[in-house]
This record gives sequence, structure tokens and C-alpha cells, in this order.
Amino acid sequence: MPKVTQAHLDARRRQIVDAARVRFAAAGFARTSVADIVAESGLSTGAVYSYFTSKEQLVIAVCEQGNEALPDALTAEAVTAFLEQVRVRARDQAHARLVTQIYAEAAFSPELAAVVDSQLAALRTAVAALVPRHPARHAATIAEAFVALCIGYSTQLAVRGDVDSTPFAEAIMAIVRS
Amino acid sequence: MPKVTQAHLDARRRQIVDAARVRFAAAGFARTSVADIVAESGLSTGAVYSYFTSKEQLVIAVCEQGNEALPDALTAEAVTAFLEQVRVRARDQAHARLVTQIYAEAAFSPELAAVVDSQLAALRTAVAALVPRHPARHAATIAEAFVALCIGYSTQLAVRGDVDSTPFAEAIMAIVRS
Repeated sequence: MPKVTQAHLDARRRQIVDAARVRFAAAGFARTSVADIVAESGLSTGAVYSYFTSKEQLVIAVCEQGNEALPDALTAEAVTAFLEQVRVRARDQAHARLVTQIYAEAAFSPELAAVVDSQLAALRTAVAALVPRHPARHAATIAEAFVALCIGYSTQLAVRGDVDSTPFAEAIMAIVRS
Repeated sequence: MPKVTQAHLDARRRQIVDAARVRFAAAGFARTSVADIVAESGLSTGAVYSYFTSKEQLVIAVCEQGNEALPDALTAEAVTAFLEQVRVRARDQAHARLVTQIYAEAAFSPELAAVVDSQLAALRTAVAALVPRHPARHAATIAEAFVALCIGYSTQLAVRGDVDSTPFAEAIMAIVRS
């Protein structure tokens, strides 16, 4: 039954990556060992090492698995709802802290930087697609600024704790309407 | 001659903090040891430890010493010149990479977070003071968005390499004019 086996392997891999995400978000990349992730996963050391042989590979997998949500449209309502989601994930899952770990690691790991770079490009493409009526150059500007503002807001949440999303939503709408 | 002695002590301290900044920017916080910083400083281990007893204290000192420049005014010309300065510092001094290290560390160190938090607040106050003709609430919105966009741009430079500053300057001006 090769299909069942593959599904089982995938589920295990996901279990390990989920454990890595939880630990990286809870304690940061430098303060987390593969042993911590083994403990969090509930699997054996051998099982974990059969999928990942380094912490570096684990952070890449965490990054690859992360599908960042986007607003449905570039309206004030949708943008506000989206930023509130970023805020809730920062509070409930320490997601903003996790993101700071990924960028800090990507700044020195070319392999992780390549993954982050392509994800940022995909995000910009998706945001640009939300502004079809603008000329292409303007859509690209909005997309660059939107992603940068979200990273900036996420960084504020990671360092300052809870921060009101209103100024960031207003800024995004000012950029969209310009 | 107590004055000379204090000046000498201050100069030595600065020499150590400069060495720490260079090494953190070159290799990241996790990959830098106090021994690396001792080597970079040209001082003895004992001399360095008489000022700082941990890497944590060194990253706080690096952060405290960093005085972030700001544009002279919120005009397109001044904002562009400012972002180009951020871009040059990313290229020549790996400053953008250093900044990712500081935020990642601040997300898990309350002591460093307090330093970063107060520096971000000072930056926002300084930016808000550049928009005196707007109502106070709007100045605060501009300041939040300005700082977040700069952090977002700096993160792009750290992860993606050189990135054109134009979309970020346009976005800041859209926010200022809104």
C-alpha cells in the first residue's frame, strides 16, 4: 500500500515540523536544540533524524510550510481584518517572534534566504494581483510597501508586545489610494 | 587626572562595542563568541570582561550606541536620500543584517526589548515632530508607519540583498500626503 505509506510519512514529517515551529516560536532559534524538538514531537530521536539532520533543515521546513494569509481585497475592512489576524497570531502562537527568528537566520543562511526570498516574491505577486485596475508599476509599488509594512508591524508585535493595528491599516490604505 | 582616565575608559568601551558591532554584523549574534569580539577589539580578554561579562550585555551596548539617522524633512527628496543611506549602510556595513539580529534577540530578551522599545518610541517622536502641521493623531500614524516601513525595507535588504528604495520612498510619501 504505497499510498498509505506516503501519507503516513507526510503526516510524521508534518508532526516534526509543527513541533519545530512551536519550539522556535517559544524559545527562539538559538535557544532551541534538536533534542527539544524531538521531545516536543513525541517521536524518537531516530525518527526525527530520519527526516531532518540539522536545525537549519528544520527552520527551512518551518518556513516552507508557512502559508501567509492575505486580505481578500485591498479595502479598509479587509486590510484591517488581515492585520488583526496578524495581531492574534502574534499573541496566541508567538508567530511574530517566530518571524523575527526566520529573518535573522535568513540574513546569514543563503539556503534559507532563497526560500524566504521566493516566498516574499509570491506574496508581492499575490498582493499586486489585488490591484488590477492600477498600472503595473503602481501595483508593484503597493505590493513592496504592503509586504514591508506587514513585516514592520510584525516586528513591532514581537518586540513591543501588543500594538494597535489601526495606524498600519491606515498607512496601507493611503498607499493603495495614492 | 580623573578626566583623562574617564575619557580613556570611555574610548576603550567604545572600542569593544565597535568590535562587537562589526562581528555581529559579519556573522550574526548566535555565530559570534565573546572570544571573537576580544580578537576583533585588539584588547585582552581581561580588558573586555572588565567592561562586559556576557554577549547579551554586548548586544545591548551595540543597540544603545546605535543612533539611527532620520530624514531632515518629510519631503520626497529627503526621504529618498534617507532610504539610500539605509541601503548604503546595508551594503557597506552589513547594517541591515545587524538589525535583524537585534530584533530577533529582542523578541526573547526583555532587557534588550526595553532598550529597543524606547529607541523605537524616540524614533516615532522624532518622525512625528517632522509633521507639525498635521493633527497630532495623524502625525502618530505617520510615525508608526514610517518606522515600520523602514524596518520592513531594512529586512528586505538583509534577506534579498540590494533592493531599490523607490517603492518605499513612494509609499512613505503617500502616507505623509494622505
